Amino acid sequence: MSQSASVIAPKRALISVSDKTGIVEFARALRARGVTLISTGGTFKLLQQNDIEVTEVSQVTAFPEMMAGRVKTLHPLIHGGILGRRGIDDEVMREHGISAIDLVVVNLYPFAQTIANADCSLADAIENIDIGGPTMVRSAAKNHKDVAIVVSADRYPELIEQWDLDGGFSAATRFALARAAFEHTAQYDGMIANYLGTVPVDTPASAIPERADFPNTFNSQFILKDIMRYGENPHQRAAFYIEEGASEAGIATITTLQGKALSYNNIADTDAALECVKSFSAPACVIVKHANPCGVATGATLKEAYQRAFSADTTSAFGGIIAFNRELDVAAADAIIGKQFVEVIIAPAVSAEAAALVASKPNIRLLACGYWSTPTPALDFKRVTGGLLVQDRDLGMIGADDLRVVTKLAPSQQQIEDLLFAWKVAKFVKSNAIVYAKDGLTTGIGAGQMSRVYSAIIANIKAKDEGLEITGSAMASEAFLPFRDSLDQAAEMGVSAVIQPGGSMRDNEVIAAADEHGIAMVFTGMRHFRH
Amino acid sequence: MSQSASVIAPKRALISVSDKTGIVEFARALRARGVTLISTGGTFKLLQQNDIEVTEVSQVTAFPEMMAGRVKTLHPLIHGGILGRRGIDDEVMREHGISAIDLVVVNLYPFAQTIANADCSLADAIENIDIGGPTMVRSAAKNHKDVAIVVSADRYPELIEQWDLDGGFSAATRFALARAAFEHTAQYDGMIANYLGTVPVDTPASAIPERADFPNTFNSQFILKDIMRYGENPHQRAAFYIEEGASEAGIATITTLQGKALSYNNIADTDAALECVKSFSAPACVIVKHANPCGVATGATLKEAYQRAFSADTTSAFGGIIAFNRELDVAAADAIIGKQFVEVIIAPAVSAEAAALVASKPNIRLLACGYWSTPTPALDFKRVTGGLLVQDRDLGMIGADDLRVVTKLAPSQQQIEDLLFAWKVAKFVKSNAIVYAKDGLTTGIGAGQMSRVYSAIIANIKAKDEGLEITGSAMASEAFLPFRDSLDQAAEMGVSAVIQPGGSMRDNEVIAAADEHGIAMVFTGMRHFRH
Repeated sequence: MSQSASVIAPKRALISVSDKTGIVEFARALRARGVTLISTGGTFKLLQQNDIEVTEVSQVTAFPEMMAGRVKTLHPLIHGGILGRRGIDDEVMREHGISAIDLVVVNLYPFAQTIANADCSLADAIENIDIGGPTMVRSAAKNHKDVAIVVSADRYPELIEQWDLDGGFSAATRFALARAAFEHTAQYDGMIANYLGTVPVDTPASAIPERADFPNTFNSQFILKDIMRYGENPHQRAAFYIEEGASEAGIATITTLQGKALSYNNIADTDAALECVKSFSAPACVIVKHANPCGVATGATLKEAYQRAFSADTTSAFGGIIAFNRELDVAAADAIIGKQFVEVIIAPAVSAEAAALVASKPNIRLLACGYWSTPTPALDFKRVTGGLLVQDRDLGMIGADDLRVVTKLAPSQQQIEDLLFAWKVAKFVKSNAIVYAKDGLTTGIGAGQMSRVYSAIIANIKAKDEGLEITGSAMASEAFLPFRDSLDQAAEMGVSAVIQPGGSMRDNEVIAAADEHGIAMVFTGMRHFRH
Repeated sequence: MSQSASVIAPKRALISVSDKTGIVEFARALRARGVTLISTGGTFKLLQQNDIEVTEVSQVTAFPEMMAGRVKTLHPLIHGGILGRRGIDDEVMREHGISAIDLVVVNLYPFAQTIANADCSLADAIENIDIGGPTMVRSAAKNHKDVAIVVSADRYPELIEQWDLDGGFSAATRFALARAAFEHTAQYDGMIANYLGTVPVDTPASAIPERADFPNTFNSQFILKDIMRYGENPHQRAAFYIEEGASEAGIATITTLQGKALSYNNIADTDAALECVKSFSAPACVIVKHANPCGVATGATLKEAYQRAFSADTTSAFGGIIAFNRELDVAAADAIIGKQFVEVIIAPAVSAEAAALVASKPNIRLLACGYWSTPTPALDFKRVTGGLLVQDRDLGMIGADDLRVVTKLAPSQQQIEDLLFAWKVAKFVKSNAIVYAKDGLTTGIGAGQMSRVYSAIIANIKAKDEGLEITGSAMASEAFLPFRDSLDQAAEMGVSAVIQPGGSMRDNEVIAAADEHGIAMVFTGMRHFRH
């Protein structure tokens, strides 16, 4: 009863939208339910053209539109109508001829689109900043006790449905709408602050600003996707958020086909596995444990790629995250299930047969993320106490043409392929990273050491323990080899070709060592620290 | 000339501030420069009490204050005065009796303070949402071509100075003020969205909401501190941001006493070193390379602590980050300079003598961050493609009383100290982490391996290479030992006591192995994955 008492069937709505999707239908549905409409600008014209009965704001305020529309809704007859407290302010509203407005439908022109235009001058950007719109949104959201505020066209159909079901909008609906409203204005002003924060203060209004790379304040909004049972550790609470409109196939676009909820560490590791497997064009498999690839391989089929990747580190693969760059087929799925305990399997898509097979192990998290194309430039963060490091996402990648041969011996075509394969893996191994690889298979991965030579040592040990043949392998170092020690180590293991950025003060020593050992070495000129 | 032509000496100011710091002095200074003042509410009263000539907003609008002040400034005579385009709208302004307002001084009551009150009901929070204030701020910021907007009391003195120097406020000043204004409203609405996003939609207005841990959208604002030459790698652009009012002594509160600008990796590593060294109460030194501690020690003095920490990994310490938990004295500084190449030295404070000594090596970055107290709960982020993992900062730490002895043998007092020391270090080593320690010195650190046993192996190798005695050391594993293999490995090295969370399905096997080897083992019940 108290619930139904709090349901509000709006009688008077103010409509002014930038996104006109569905507005005519919504307005018509409101009219059909007896709602009086007030509107302004382009929305007013559109409704009129569609023969929907509507009053213009300027008629309500008895104040003309002026200043190119800058102040039309900033009027007590509008905001009093929105903000007036029903049951408290009724008399003062009557006295001043203020009629209640109990539904506000307003959304704002995306500021990001304004400034995305390469010709956008500072004056254009400023002129596009909406003052009246956010004020109506905020007024209505504040007074959600008595007013419904709709900022998204997506909600129109369900709101009409609710109205017909409940006789109006419930308090919970109005609260949820108010929350969305402040999320909308927060995002809007965040974008404006980010933009203005990159514009040099002495930019003339008519100029297209020479924007700085980073704004004066960094404002961001992420949307809740999941609350996890806990974070990296059980005593930490955690949640997973995604960007608005996240579209690049990846951890943010997954469909969970089966399995338990993803944990914090699952998400972090799946992201690492997926980003690594995106590097390869041949059928490929990446197995990740503790944020590092422990086995990476290509193959004629996904099954072969998986079997080879597993063979690279049979110890670590246990309980790992397995990512593929092709639709998961039943053969690959079968190979995994027959061989190991696995936390997550992810691929752009999963065949029906593969999904049916994996269903026999209901705990496995089986995910499809869609097919990717070129990765999107984005910002990467690292949190520190009291602050945030912000940088470009590492999308750098060299190709065969970028390699500079620095040794007497040049790598063969096969070696170049091995070098590039090893390099692509090394980019995703925590620094210091040493990766041995041969024929599209990692034969040893040395991760996360404070001194590069120990990464080479640990990669050697693991290769030996797994019975892998390093002789003839390529070796990648994601940052320059500072001394010849890692190279001597590699030569001892039988490495025949090396890829590294170069740039050490001792490059000459390292090159001389390679020449001594008859190793072909190429420089990439690009580093891939990943910590 | 064109610069001076664009200088504006305001004639009419609207003042309405929540933070009343310095407002009387500022208003008086404006009056002394011939500015007409309009004000409202508490600000109006305060100015009047101080005998400052001021007109109330309701007199300007000829519209009474109503609805407990909800709509007083939302009026065309106010917003037309702010938003009117000088030179374009002059006639329409005259026609409608709109007088230009060319200075707006408004700031908003911090919403964070409203909701910090434990008794704050949903209705209280909602009532505290300011509608008129942000609208004036946004109007004035949009029209910064003709209007100056001041949202921070900090700026009053310099603005008066500028006025006296330049005859008013320059276009660049007005632009900078407008930027700060949108930063203010973005932060304000971000806070409101974060708050409403944690309130269950069916919360009655009169109730104190049972807030969720994580909001529906996660809105944040960070403030630019430095733009770096590049990010984790040279092809990535990067910047360092800090939280508003960051107060916990750490990387966000540093004073650079000398040296080159900090790089992205410097900041990340310094943060890691500092957070680790905060764990110790005795004089301590942490040396970090590639985000991992490579040597950690306590000592009777900082010099001794440093010398011991250095001895733990003389190879990796080269080019490292060195953090202390006491004022850096000249003896410790001298020991470092005489021994190694160092990128960063950081301590809560630096003695004048130490600073003078380090000056002989001008490239060393010498930082003081202030003294810390209890760490502040905060959120930690991990960026993934298209999304963000958010979790509690890992502030968990167990003490001697939390240890559960699981072996026949209980650790001695000295062993308990070694175990806790090793545990504190393991918390800051990338997973999987194995740390050997004895007498307040790490005797082997195995970091970042995909399989725990390899962390034990690499720690052993490093200990041997450095000639360190592991016999009698304590061993810490930041997560449970899944199998007995790492324990057997430890026993072989002479480890006498082990600390780990426990919780493996095979705990019994691991405990049995410890008993077999005569090792004392304690469980912490708390894990510290760090990836």
